[in-house]
Amino acid sequence: MSKGITTREADYSQWYNELVKKADLAENSPVRGCMIIKPYGYSIWEKMQAGLDKMFKETGHTNAYFPLFIPKSFLSKEADHVKGFAKECAVVTHYRLKNDPNGKGIVVDPEAKLEEELIIRPTSETMIWSSYKNWIQSYRDLPLLLNQWVNVVRWEMRTRLFLRTTEFLWQEGHTAHATKQEAVDETIQMMNVYAKFAEDYMAMPVIKGVKTESEKFAGAVDTYCIEALMQDGKALQAGTSHFLGQNFAKAFDVKFADKEGKLEYVWGTSWGATTRLMGALVMVHSDDNGLVLPPRLAPIQVAIVPIYKNEGELKAVSEKANIIRKALEAEGISVKYDDRDTQKPGWKFAEYEFKGVPVRLAMGPRDLENNTIEVARRDLLQKESISQDGIVVHVKKLLEEIQKNLFDRALERREKQTYSVDTWEEFVETLDKKGGFIRAHWDGTPETEAQIKEKTKATVRCIELDAKEESGKCILTGKSSSKRVLFAKAY
Amino acid sequence: MSKGITTREADYSQWYNELVKKADLAENSPVRGCMIIKPYGYSIWEKMQAGLDKMFKETGHTNAYFPLFIPKSFLSKEADHVKGFAKECAVVTHYRLKNDPNGKGIVVDPEAKLEEELIIRPTSETMIWSSYKNWIQSYRDLPLLLNQWVNVVRWEMRTRLFLRTTEFLWQEGHTAHATKQEAVDETIQMMNVYAKFAEDYMAMPVIKGVKTESEKFAGAVDTYCIEALMQDGKALQAGTSHFLGQNFAKAFDVKFADKEGKLEYVWGTSWGATTRLMGALVMVHSDDNGLVLPPRLAPIQVAIVPIYKNEGELKAVSEKANIIRKALEAEGISVKYDDRDTQKPGWKFAEYEFKGVPVRLAMGPRDLENNTIEVARRDLLQKESISQDGIVVHVKKLLEEIQKNLFDRALERREKQTYSVDTWEEFVETLDKKGGFIRAHWDGTPETEAQIKEKTKATVRCIELDAKEESGKCILTGKSSSKRVLFAKAY
Repeated sequence: MSKGITTREADYSQWYNELVKKADLAENSPVRGCMIIKPYGYSIWEKMQAGLDKMFKETGHTNAYFPLFIPKSFLSKEADHVKGFAKECAVVTHYRLKNDPNGKGIVVDPEAKLEEELIIRPTSETMIWSSYKNWIQSYRDLPLLLNQWVNVVRWEMRTRLFLRTTEFLWQEGHTAHATKQEAVDETIQMMNVYAKFAEDYMAMPVIKGVKTESEKFAGAVDTYCIEALMQDGKALQAGTSHFLGQNFAKAFDVKFADKEGKLEYVWGTSWGATTRLMGALVMVHSDDNGLVLPPRLAPIQVAIVPIYKNEGELKAVSEKANIIRKALEAEGISVKYDDRDTQKPGWKFAEYEFKGVPVRLAMGPRDLENNTIEVARRDLLQKESISQDGIVVHVKKLLEEIQKNLFDRALERREKQTYSVDTWEEFVETLDKKGGFIRAHWDGTPETEAQIKEKTKATVRCIELDAKEESGKCILTGKSSSKRVLFAKAY
Repeated sequence: MSKGITTREADYSQWYNELVKKADLAENSPVRGCMIIKPYGYSIWEKMQAGLDKMFKETGHTNAYFPLFIPKSFLSKEADHVKGFAKECAVVTHYRLKNDPNGKGIVVDPEAKLEEELIIRPTSETMIWSSYKNWIQSYRDLPLLLNQWVNVVRWEMRTRLFLRTTEFLWQEGHTAHATKQEAVDETIQMMNVYAKFAEDYMAMPVIKGVKTESEKFAGAVDTYCIEALMQDGKALQAGTSHFLGQNFAKAFDVKFADKEGKLEYVWGTSWGATTRLMGALVMVHSDDNGLVLPPRLAPIQVAIVPIYKNEGELKAVSEKANIIRKALEAEGISVKYDDRDTQKPGWKFAEYEFKGVPVRLAMGPRDLENNTIEVARRDLLQKESISQDGIVVHVKKLLEEIQKNLFDRALERREKQTYSVDTWEEFVETLDKKGGFIRAHWDGTPETEAQIKEKTKATVRCIELDAKEESGKCILTGKSSSKRVLFAKAY
């Protein structure tokens, strides 16, 4: 173990990049902008998937699978959607390779050109609504509540592992409803599901809100979102839920017969969360010693390291350690007993600390004599020696405590980094010196929003759902405003 | 419900196509050769994934994710691999669209041409071994036991839902080992995992064997496989496991230092199973009345239908039915209580029969009086009225019985359709009149194998692992042979 990494204070961005790579979460691939999610990183993603998928199913959704390819013409069907998505896309133009006639490897066969180019899905509204047209005839077919877990591609110029990659993994929910109210309710429900997941599983407090016109999804009427604050004071959008109105129903002519037989356009929603959440998870909790993982998403919740000088000692320690391991596993806790003889205990301690394993136990011959065991918790970097009696109950409680502590700590940090300002000078100074979330008045126009962004790089993250009515003046134009909105620089 | 489908006898192929669509498993998409897996179909696939994934993890494998795109030059690195895979591929040549200068929608931006074309992965050996080069230095890094669940694309000219599609879903395992023996053992282990999954979950008996030189994976030393027989007497390859030798290690220069510090090439395996298994599941069990699903993979294992004339009767029946539902669910059985008032009981019976739900229960006012319940089993299309007492134990046993019966029935059918022939005339006649598996002698040369295929469309499915030594004469050339091989026409 010599995984020294740049400190957060020295260079937060560098700290993140090094940590993601050295903790075996992900690395860059030979294809520009595409990442390889390594086994340790992927096993965290699997836990995220399992948690979200369970919540989607509990709210009545079913998974399906729609094609990777979207005919180019589909993207043009919804006017706003095409503006937002038909830009930086991977385009398939040919379907065959052949041997280079000049003998230099293989080349694209010019005769195998597609009549219509295919786009690798950047999102699947168009493909899915073209299917919904066939699937929905009557009110009996509604609501249709589908989701898919897939890869998508958006050709990004500047990429960063997890935070912004050309190919990423996500889930995209797509629902169809008979009434506007039902679709709005669904949109809000799914924002709440994301918020609950972020807070309960990721231990990451979030703010719920609605995007402004210029920040909303291309093709949506309203975009609801959850916003989290990273340790460096920058915001990260951690999930979005879109009320699509009848936009895609009209673009793809999806109508249903209501109980009276009258034909109406269907109301839609879509909502997604991505492998970006992995980046948020790292940035919200981890420290200069490495990853800090919340117990509910940690692939290994407890690591047990034996301390020994010879085979005899190892045997004695292993016997006891395995009893504890099994007792913990019986409680549904994932345990790794690390008796590898290729590494020293100190190396292993450093390794599990770096990998963010919430609890590490260590036991040696003296512990056997004294009926003790060393318990180290990753979040506070504290350790203590306790009695082996009741170790299972102790660890179980400790995991819950760590989960809660991580949330509380992140919430406290966010509260400290959330400011309310009334003047342009204060706004600029706060952004420059402190970062964080800034609640301020804005005149509600896209022009002002764009100017603020240009001058400061800060954007309106959202109009908070629970923002209270309060008359004030726009920090830039001085025009009147009825409530504060949430500004921040964002990932 | 009016889902009459073509019978198997009238047209097996048509029966399959209609069944897959009408049972809501999958349908064709607007993109040629790509399918949409519908919610009911996908929920079966999820159960397959869960079953296989559990077995992969129990045998020490971890999941990861490698990019969708493969640089064109990667495909050329392994000589045999390029011949097998660098043909019918989807090729990404551009990364941007723009508004058509003539105002007709959007067009590919000619300025956004990639320097090197990207291939949508047809399989990921090349990408993964290019990573293994960085991940493997020492014997301590071995074995490396990875798997990924992803979509892949092979540009097929003739496609059929699940059986052969341009895009399909699969898992691909890729392992690296220090010794040849360990890699061979892994290859055989994973073939056995597939066989166990096919037999225990899918209730589909399989034959294990090795592919001939001409049928093996492009880049492998040996390909192990499992072969199943469909009801029409055609074979279906249901999973393959490849011993790659040092081929990919050499192509990507992947060496490790052994305990003595000597550099050696790594030994590799890869193994995969695809959404094709969905096609096999349908074809091996289903009948002219619709799907027949083995209980272990059925999304709904038990459907309960209330019989009633009025609200009062529904209420009384529902009360009892929900008690039974909960008791079944407590045993881990997935139950649907269908009290929709938009459909009659007869319609629901037909629906669950068509969708292959293993057990259907029905209960009306008279049942409440008599303490009885109607139990229908899908596999035998039988029903009986039994006492409500002990219904949970009865259903639990029945589900096990159905699982076993489906396997036994498929095995019996296969045994009946497996022949041993000694002459060319017999071979041709059996193929023409009966189909099925044919054990026959073959002289072992690719030339003879190709001739047999050309004359009859039958291929050597595999050289069975447990084929006994037996001297004989090749059915085509009369040359000597030391054991029979397994022939069939195949999907």
